[in-house]
Amino acid sequence: MDVLIKNGTIATAEGSYKADLAIEKDKIAAISRNIEGEHGKVIDASGKLVMPGAIDVHVHLQLPFCGTVSADDFENGTKAAACGGVTSVIDFAIQKKGETLIDAVDARKAEADEKVCVDYALHAVPTDWGVNTAAEMEKLASDGITSFKMFMIYAKEGMISDDDALFSALETVSRFGGVVGVHAESVRVLDLLIERYHNEEDMKKYGAFCHVLSRPNFTEYEAISRAVTWAEATGGKLYIVHMSTGEGAEIVSKAHERGVKVFAETCPQYLLLDDSVFRKKDGHLYATCPQIKSKKDADRLWEGLATGDVSTIATDTCTFNTEQKAMWKGDFTKIPFGLPGVETLLPLAYSYGVVNNRLSLQKLVQTVSTNPAKIMGMYPEKGSLAVGSDADIVIFDPDRQIKLSHKDLQTNCDWSPFEGYELNGYPDVTICRGKVVAERGKFTGETGFGKFIKRRPGYDEL
Amino acid sequence: MDVLIKNGTIATAEGSYKADLAIEKDKIAAISRNIEGEHGKVIDASGKLVMPGAIDVHVHLQLPFCGTVSADDFENGTKAAACGGVTSVIDFAIQKKGETLIDAVDARKAEADEKVCVDYALHAVPTDWGVNTAAEMEKLASDGITSFKMFMIYAKEGMISDDDALFSALETVSRFGGVVGVHAESVRVLDLLIERYHNEEDMKKYGAFCHVLSRPNFTEYEAISRAVTWAEATGGKLYIVHMSTGEGAEIVSKAHERGVKVFAETCPQYLLLDDSVFRKKDGHLYATCPQIKSKKDADRLWEGLATGDVSTIATDTCTFNTEQKAMWKGDFTKIPFGLPGVETLLPLAYSYGVVNNRLSLQKLVQTVSTNPAKIMGMYPEKGSLAVGSDADIVIFDPDRQIKLSHKDLQTNCDWSPFEGYELNGYPDVTICRGKVVAERGKFTGETGFGKFIKRRPGYDEL
Amino acid sequence: MDVLIKNGTIATAEGSYKADLAIEKDKIAAISRNIEGEHGKVIDASGKLVMPGAIDVHVHLQLPFCGTVSADDFENGTKAAACGGVTSVIDFAIQKKGETLIDAVDARKAEADEKVCVDYALHAVPTDWGVNTAAEMEKLASDGITSFKMFMIYAKEGMISDDDALFSALETVSRFGGVVGVHAESVRVLDLLIERYHNEEDMKKYGAFCHVLSRPNFTEYEAISRAVTWAEATGGKLYIVHMSTGEGAEIVSKAHERGVKVFAETCPQYLLLDDSVFRKKDGHLYATCPQIKSKKDADRLWEGLATGDVSTIATDTCTFNTEQKAMWKGDFTKIPFGLPGVETLLPLAYSYGVVNNRLSLQKLVQTVSTNPAKIMGMYPEKGSLAVGSDADIVIFDPDRQIKLSHKDLQTNCDWSPFEGYELNGYPDVTICRGKVVAERGKFTGETGFGKFIKRRPGYDEL
Amino acid sequence: MDVLIKNGTIATAEGSYKADLAIEKDKIAAISRNIEGEHGKVIDASGKLVMPGAIDVHVHLQLPFCGTVSADDFENGTKAAACGGVTSVIDFAIQKKGETLIDAVDARKAEADEKVCVDYALHAVPTDWGVNTAAEMEKLASDGITSFKMFMIYAKEGMISDDDALFSALETVSRFGGVVGVHAESVRVLDLLIERYHNEEDMKKYGAFCHVLSRPNFTEYEAISRAVTWAEATGGKLYIVHMSTGEGAEIVSKAHERGVKVFAETCPQYLLLDDSVFRKKDGHLYATCPQIKSKKDADRLWEGLATGDVSTIATDTCTFNTEQKAMWKGDFTKIPFGLPGVETLLPLAYSYGVVNNRLSLQKLVQTVSTNPAKIMGMYPEKGSLAVGSDADIVIFDPDRQIKLSHKDLQTNCDWSPFEGYELNGYPDVTICRGKVVAERGKFTGETGFGKFIKRRPGYDEL
Repeated sequence: MDVLIKNGTIATAEGSYKADLAIEKDKIAAISRNIEGEHGKVIDASGKLVMPGAIDVHVHLQLPFCGTVSADDFENGTKAAACGGVTSVIDFAIQKKGETLIDAVDARKAEADEKVCVDYALHAVPTDWGVNTAAEMEKLASDGITSFKMFMIYAKEGMISDDDALFSALETVSRFGGVVGVHAESVRVLDLLIERYHNEEDMKKYGAFCHVLSRPNFTEYEAISRAVTWAEATGGKLYIVHMSTGEGAEIVSKAHERGVKVFAETCPQYLLLDDSVFRKKDGHLYATCPQIKSKKDADRLWEGLATGDVSTIATDTCTFNTEQKAMWKGDFTKIPFGLPGVETLLPLAYSYGVVNNRLSLQKLVQTVSTNPAKIMGMYPEKGSLAVGSDADIVIFDPDRQIKLSHKDLQTNCDWSPFEGYELNGYPDVTICRGKVVAERGKFTGETGFGKFIKRRPGYDEL
Repeated sequence: MDVLIKNGTIATAEGSYKADLAIEKDKIAAISRNIEGEHGKVIDASGKLVMPGAIDVHVHLQLPFCGTVSADDFENGTKAAACGGVTSVIDFAIQKKGETLIDAVDARKAEADEKVCVDYALHAVPTDWGVNTAAEMEKLASDGITSFKMFMIYAKEGMISDDDALFSALETVSRFGGVVGVHAESVRVLDLLIERYHNEEDMKKYGAFCHVLSRPNFTEYEAISRAVTWAEATGGKLYIVHMSTGEGAEIVSKAHERGVKVFAETCPQYLLLDDSVFRKKDGHLYATCPQIKSKKDADRLWEGLATGDVSTIATDTCTFNTEQKAMWKGDFTKIPFGLPGVETLLPLAYSYGVVNNRLSLQKLVQTVSTNPAKIMGMYPEKGSLAVGSDADIVIFDPDRQIKLSHKDLQTNCDWSPFEGYELNGYPDVTICRGKVVAERGKFTGETGFGKFIKRRPGYDEL
Repeated sequence: MDVLIKNGTIATAEGSYKADLAIEKDKIAAISRNIEGEHGKVIDASGKLVMPGAIDVHVHLQLPFCGTVSADDFENGTKAAACGGVTSVIDFAIQKKGETLIDAVDARKAEADEKVCVDYALHAVPTDWGVNTAAEMEKLASDGITSFKMFMIYAKEGMISDDDALFSALETVSRFGGVVGVHAESVRVLDLLIERYHNEEDMKKYGAFCHVLSRPNFTEYEAISRAVTWAEATGGKLYIVHMSTGEGAEIVSKAHERGVKVFAETCPQYLLLDDSVFRKKDGHLYATCPQIKSKKDADRLWEGLATGDVSTIATDTCTFNTEQKAMWKGDFTKIPFGLPGVETLLPLAYSYGVVNNRLSLQKLVQTVSTNPAKIMGMYPEKGSLAVGSDADIVIFDPDRQIKLSHKDLQTNCDWSPFEGYELNGYPDVTICRGKVVAERGKFTGETGFGKFIKRRPGYDEL
Repeated sequence: MDVLIKNGTIATAEGSYKADLAIEKDKIAAISRNIEGEHGKVIDASGKLVMPGAIDVHVHLQLPFCGTVSADDFENGTKAAACGGVTSVIDFAIQKKGETLIDAVDARKAEADEKVCVDYALHAVPTDWGVNTAAEMEKLASDGITSFKMFMIYAKEGMISDDDALFSALETVSRFGGVVGVHAESVRVLDLLIERYHNEEDMKKYGAFCHVLSRPNFTEYEAISRAVTWAEATGGKLYIVHMSTGEGAEIVSKAHERGVKVFAETCPQYLLLDDSVFRKKDGHLYATCPQIKSKKDADRLWEGLATGDVSTIATDTCTFNTEQKAMWKGDFTKIPFGLPGVETLLPLAYSYGVVNNRLSLQKLVQTVSTNPAKIMGMYPEKGSLAVGSDADIVIFDPDRQIKLSHKDLQTNCDWSPFEGYELNGYPDVTICRGKVVAERGKFTGETGFGKFIKRRPGYDEL
């Protein structure tokens, strides 16, 4: 065998047990109580958890936005992923007006292919629905892109997919089993409220908190409710990205009871922070879209992860450093939205989920690895410790105590929304397709090693 | 290795993949893409599913009832289990008046130990709640009996646990993580309705259908609702045995939303038959308690299995042959209640669940094996194909076509409620703790091989 | 005309308007903008509300209980009613073991007839269900007693109607449109909890608060849920007396959605007080059954009145003075349960409902007069200001400010649970069947004037 | 007195009783058991129901639409109203682009004032939301127009109020207690589906049924759900006009539980017909917007009227005769939408509601008269038989048997959607503000008699 991981506790979506695990080339070749013999490399995992590598299905690397570009490019962003125990990421290929969706994918692949350090895939993002779009989606699906993403907002920015496009896209994926992700916010009321607070007096008075004032919970949950209605009407599978409200979880819960094919994703920022951050002096740094909501929302989202109302944790990584964020100059509509995140996903979810008894270990594996793989059509190659699966593995040390500092991270970011957070556990070794790509938080792989993941239609239920 | 299963499709609660599986002594020792070397026995599982052995947590072997004894004793009943792919069963130790609960367990063990052919455990059944019962339950738990069962009916028979006893038992298990199973029917209204139909005219007119007339759905779901209230009030874990009504599934679903620790079990008879059987000439044969309900209930129960409202399928096996059943002589209150079942659990659930697209393969494994093991406190030794788990395995042939006939079965029963049912798949080899105990439906193990399973507190959520 | 009420604001269940109202003999004879001519008596109601007399459908006058008799007998209790604007009361005829239900009614009538000062009716209370009880109920209904009451508790006291009796009673009333009232508490768990706290140590430590500790909300709402199930199963109409929990209101709300015929009553003590009263030095005085719950429950009950989940406010009047209450001597199981109340029903409901914006004036009239009359089968003779209706009228002064003191009341009680409460409004004149029976809180009628009300089947929905 | 109605049964929103009713000038002056003396006119109402005149809050008289004008103008339309027992109607003043809302109202008033034969009011309809619109709404409210109507569809026609305008309008009315009516359909998906069926092949194949195919239930209920969200967010009162789906009733029911201020209206066509009419040869005649749905929807709407989920029945009268309807020439997008209706509202609701036991008499009065008056801010002048109220009265003969034929009606329509329907009851005399305006279905009033009704803010709950 090429790599042997000995004496660890294998932790899967089903449960945990002690065993050795052997890798041959890029695949898991054996799981056994005691594997002996010749091996290229032996890793002692005593006292450690051996989990399928985390999968972050929501990252925006080197994204042009607000006149700048997000600070983690495909290279450094995927290095950060590796350091944090993430072995696959999914980024976005956003269609430009006039361009075909297929062109958008090809262009984005060209940006990524030579740089990526772990495996990656792309969601195609239609922004210009036309007579050929459905056919392009079917073509992309046959080429391994089975997930799509639509913005229900960004009308002025020309990226919106309004109800007719969203409905059509859901109809389209219902034919081949794909999935439509949505950024769900109510565009018209949201724009009205943004406009309302976009004046000197309020911005002076409330600063970055205008971001909160202009986005009450209903701007998210109305849009979720609407998208769920279209999913139910069409039979198309829906994936709600970065869900931030408790009401959203409630709507998904009720939709599950009715048998609607819908999954929801949330992010560490919605689970661990609350909107009081926007009252801080540097509150603008925390601006994401949608914004962080209240403690009560966070509680409902944790509960949703435990009960299945929320299926995945991803990060919506879109790194902007303090200099980039400073471009806002007091105008909350000009803040580059986004936070670093892929690197801290797993240790935060472990420390504040498992250690704090919010999630069982099994649920953690499900929400950061197995569920994303199943929903996005790459299970069991990814998201599983089964024999024959890709050897995407994180050896996680539950005894490592770290106080989080941006200085210790790989990400190109000079601050962290979780600065000073106590971590009770950290990735020790990250293995991507059989190759060790990070050790104790340091990247040890090679640029361009990552491969584009061709995907199939994903699961309808988990 | 002692046994090597080659080329099969490993099917677990999480998903499926192709791999070889090796057994050393009584444990699963390795799962590997390709296992070579010396082995005591090699089984070719090409084209077959390799699943954790089914676990039937609800059987009544050699049960004295209605002046007779159920026709499958511990020996033949567990042989039948083995033939059907079931590697563990849980029977019941029912307290007699005046006897301690511990005595009841010891007595039942004595009946079973030398006879059992697969592993077994016992639920202790308090029927005489007293000042010492809680302490006895705690003592039993420390000896590996962590599940209890209570009858909400059978007042005249002296087996009832009324609300105060049930409440007390739930309080008790809440202290150590045990679980209380309940037979949930509303005793007073039920007895009223039985009395109402228990007259010559109605019995002449309706025959065995009186059993249906006297047990409307509300006699079950009121009791479920009440038991759930006590579980919620005490924090004690509740397990609803043989749930037969759709309304029951609805109540459990709502309880899950509120975070109540409650699980429900249903049985093949409630999923595959409907109450029209009681209008048949030999309708009395089908009498169980509770009785089989309507097609609509069956649909809701299947849906419940898919969505998690119902967690397990067990059989409530209590075999009575036609001669025993004939004792009723037209009086529906004198029918020995019970059906054969342990042997056909897995092929029926596969054929009518997986093949008919009611359940994913993954859900099947969960409901007949992994969930029962987790709830009843014997996971991951049982219910799992993990390395280190007991080598309780069924190799299932999905291509075998059989028309079910009681003549081909091991059970001591001269009829079957599922006579003539088409089976699309059947167990090929059953392995219990590393030993082949059945092949192609014939018992090949040895009497007394089965062991008593000492259990821990089970899972609170799945 | 015999009586003319001029210049008042007529306030009905539908709305309000200014008009004169004339009475001829015992009936409302005219409502007119301006009634002129000869009249026996003219009352100026300028600035006042002219409402249908309140109807208190839940009083226990001269009730033998705990070795004493409730301190307001039929005479003084109905005088107090008159003083408080209540023109009809319904008391209870409780069957003794061995006695027929009809005998019980006759005996109770004999106690009341010569004493009552306002109109009255009786609920018949079966406590000894037998083969003839259903027939007796039908007989009583034809004699004008269409409502029945059952205790789900008081097993030791021999007054319980267990599920079979309750089910049978609901079946019975479903045949003729009657209604079954229930005191809903879960007898077996309740008795277990009472027993648990019934020891010297706890009683010393918690005093009267043991009454709260032994009756958690679930002891009420489980019983409500069960009774609703029987009502739904039988089609019989159910009336939940003295509902004290918010969960109860929720259960009724859901039952209404399913079309179940069920109404709920609450009382001023559950709306205005909370269980902290039992921590007071004289906490035992407040003991009723069920006990007063939390502020949160009160809020939900107010909301229920506004939305229709709760249909009526009655008082459960059962007066015990401090000497009688003192019989408890520290043992919470020996407190005579009950509070004075009929006299303060209307001013409390007005002051804390209408003035505090919890209820519209229209809802007030509905809940204290029109709904009780409709549910109990005496509308439109009672509960209405329609022409032809009985001239049961209260002229209410919304400008009268009073601080409540038991000293100013008619009731034979030397304390009040609402002592010191600010009243914003008080009855000015009470008219029963055309006769002025009270003025400004003083009784002016005559003993024995009240008549027994023969009732019909009531409304199924409001 | 000017008019005396003798011996009738007074039927109000609260209940019924026998009495005489006298009118002085334009007001109800007295209700009395027996009114004697001198009277201008005496009407014998023996055996008849005396009800408050019906109020149709949704009519479109002489509406320019599809290049034609609806066939009942203000004169004939209000004559038809009078003949059918309707004493008040509310029509619409639809803003034109560039015009102020106040101008629109003035222009519409000018069209109506000299023609109307019963009283009328106007809903103002903003279609061009701008910086002054909110102020105009407040101005109109102070002039007696407290209700507004918005179209969530008709984007191409330039009449749409999108989410931002609807949200703003609800915010506006929340300040003064007004109400916003909405035509709730999901514009973008609806237009997509219309476009989809708008091709020669489908139109040839399905004819007028394309109208059904292009408007699945979700096109209505998604919009209702959205509007309710905005109502809940703003605290503004919402009135859903012509609700046609059962799901809509469900959404309103849930909103009521949450305390949202929302009312729903349905129409006879949604209660009595089903979408099979569009398969008839002359199916295009039945085209309204939204279209008639299924029998199941009708059942849920009837249930909603009984339980309060639906508060009013109005007609959406917009008369087009067969010649006008013929303009469609096979293109379902060119059918003038609308049906005659004001004249048959009351007899249909009585015959198919009360006689068929779908509604109590009391509920009928509530839904066609009292509730509309309360919601629209004209109670108790309108919608009530109280002394002091406007003498708007219909004397209804419950014994009159009529087979409905358009030939017998006042409306300018040469067909009826309810042709041949059996009516069990019909208006005998209609009185508007004290003046008899119709007798036995024939108009007897005078043109221009009707007055514009100045309204106040309406009720928040019923």
